[in-house]
Amino acid sequence: MYYVNKEKLEKLVSLVFTKCGMNQDYAKTAAEVLVQADATGVETHGVTRLPLYAKRFESGGTNLNPKIEKLNSHKANIALHGDNGSGLVVGPAALNICIEAAKKEGFSSVTVSNSGHYGCGNYYGNKFAEAGLIGITMTNTAPLMAPLGGKERMIGTNPITIAFPAKNKPPVILDIATSLVSFGKIQVAANLNESIPTNWVNDSEGTPTDDPVKGLDGTLQPMAAHKGYGLALMVDMFCSILAKSAYGQNITIIEKLSGPNPENIGHFMMAISPSTFYNYDEFVERVDAYVDYMVNTEKAKGVERIYVPGEIEAEKYAESIKKGVPVREEASDRIMNLCKELNIDIEGFSTIVDLANSL
Amino acid sequence: MYYVNKEKLEKLVSLVFTKCGMNQDYAKTAAEVLVQADATGVETHGVTRLPLYAKRFESGGTNLNPKIEKLNSHKANIALHGDNGSGLVVGPAALNICIEAAKKEGFSSVTVSNSGHYGCGNYYGNKFAEAGLIGITMTNTAPLMAPLGGKERMIGTNPITIAFPAKNKPPVILDIATSLVSFGKIQVAANLNESIPTNWVNDSEGTPTDDPVKGLDGTLQPMAAHKGYGLALMVDMFCSILAKSAYGQNITIIEKLSGPNPENIGHFMMAISPSTFYNYDEFVERVDAYVDYMVNTEKAKGVERIYVPGEIEAEKYAESIKKGVPVREEASDRIMNLCKELNIDIEGFSTIVDLANSL
Repeated sequence: MYYVNKEKLEKLVSLVFTKCGMNQDYAKTAAEVLVQADATGVETHGVTRLPLYAKRFESGGTNLNPKIEKLNSHKANIALHGDNGSGLVVGPAALNICIEAAKKEGFSSVTVSNSGHYGCGNYYGNKFAEAGLIGITMTNTAPLMAPLGGKERMIGTNPITIAFPAKNKPPVILDIATSLVSFGKIQVAANLNESIPTNWVNDSEGTPTDDPVKGLDGTLQPMAAHKGYGLALMVDMFCSILAKSAYGQNITIIEKLSGPNPENIGHFMMAISPSTFYNYDEFVERVDAYVDYMVNTEKAKGVERIYVPGEIEAEKYAESIKKGVPVREEASDRIMNLCKELNIDIEGFSTIVDLANSL
Repeated sequence: MYYVNKEKLEKLVSLVFTKCGMNQDYAKTAAEVLVQADATGVETHGVTRLPLYAKRFESGGTNLNPKIEKLNSHKANIALHGDNGSGLVVGPAALNICIEAAKKEGFSSVTVSNSGHYGCGNYYGNKFAEAGLIGITMTNTAPLMAPLGGKERMIGTNPITIAFPAKNKPPVILDIATSLVSFGKIQVAANLNESIPTNWVNDSEGTPTDDPVKGLDGTLQPMAAHKGYGLALMVDMFCSILAKSAYGQNITIIEKLSGPNPENIGHFMMAISPSTFYNYDEFVERVDAYVDYMVNTEKAKGVERIYVPGEIEAEKYAESIKKGVPVREEASDRIMNLCKELNIDIEGFSTIVDLANSL
């Protein structure tokens, strides 16, 4: 594992994005979103995806410098069009608009159509909390689940992020997908030829299976059966129906896109200003006290510590600031190769640490 | 099973509540909430609870005619105090305030402190949808779950309801608790001496068990482990931290309350007017089309039909209007006894059907 200074890593990622053709502002933001994932331990949504994004950008399917347009607004309810930009750019732009409107009006809800995969939810949750707002953000994703009882891929893993600011503690940030496990877990088990619990995945006939290889052509199971299915569907209702964006098989997974086809992803964000309900200081003190109350409850046998959502990510973030952001050797190699392809001078640098430090 | 005309059943339930001391308006609303549960097949939240409510009201622990007070408001963000009223009364009052504000402002969020168990979420979901609004409502409940890794009852089953209006189809209404199963299911299994799946409940030491009897002193498991725990906690953050209401062990389950102790439950409701984003007709047409797309997907083997959330409840409701609201014989007997105790003249009526029809 390599450990890279966070700002340097952001500079490197930003350089890659500008080489792909993104303007500097957008590239800086997109880099921050990606690196936030690695810094908080959500490796799957981090710089390991950089070659994938670069390939996608090269194919011409993404508008690298989108003009994010306000289609409609009514007070702090705002409908945005993402102009087929990368979600790493459109997502944060929508987030800023949502935050500014909520600061002004006490509340805001923002829909986004025609965007792309917007990265890790923790980035958005943290920004809401930093602004002193309660925030919710949802995005639909390319379909990997079937409706309960179905066998076709019709619904994404449609994650939800909910954030509450705290006073002295890290913000409480729940960031969950509505499938029980990620597709990545099925791929790992298939590679290792290991059997998996029967509530992870269905085969292509819609039957639960413990064989991950059969799951690769099948569908992920929603968490908690009808409950997760229902939540995934509701996320779609916000991100595709209210946002007037695509749904179901009209969304394509970025890995499978080629040429000019758009991702067609939609988002929904909302923020509430707690200070419109009562004194903000008292509010964040109550958040801290609640967290204390929960984590200090009596533990079950063998349990060392009780966490609240977002706590692990916040601790990993603090460690990343101190030690550097962890990047696996293989991710480093792939990024170095990518840099070479993009004519970034990597001469004399053998790892991502050296290259980043030179910037 | 008896089948009672819906309006007649509401009249009977309303009569019971007025005999307990509730004013006519409140009694009518509370009756509508309870009967909606039976009419939509959510029996656990229906008239079977009537004797429980009456006992609670008799103990003096509930303010039967609460003055629901606006503590603070900023545009359509409104903080209410439930004045220790029944949730069946305070919940619908808050709902109306939320709906009116959202119609005016395009959005509303309402917190409620010092309320009680507010009945079935479907009632609230339907009212949002009837008003042409997207609605979310949450309530905390008396603790039955532990934080993940804990063994004490610290968090309620904290249900969430999300509703979208449709055009020709029933509204899409998700109404789920954040535990995997209800405590009632554990009680039923314990009575039948049947073993249960090990992801339903933990014993009093926090260890998963297949013995429902051990579960009775233990804690319900959240749905999907950390995901359901996180959601339950977030519901608490809205309903107790933002609503400035109680949480954890300061909430007492209505069955265990005696004397003047309040339930201390909090709610959070919010509504969004879809017509502030784009044309309402087009919006509800998109909802209908989405539902069609999902329910007509290819079915797994042995599956007869695919549903979206709220569809089963809507069909049961239609049946209840046609055939009468189903009430079990034992519930009928208990309600008849209760009526007698409250000096309602039941002479000559042997079942709840006869008594209700006489009103």
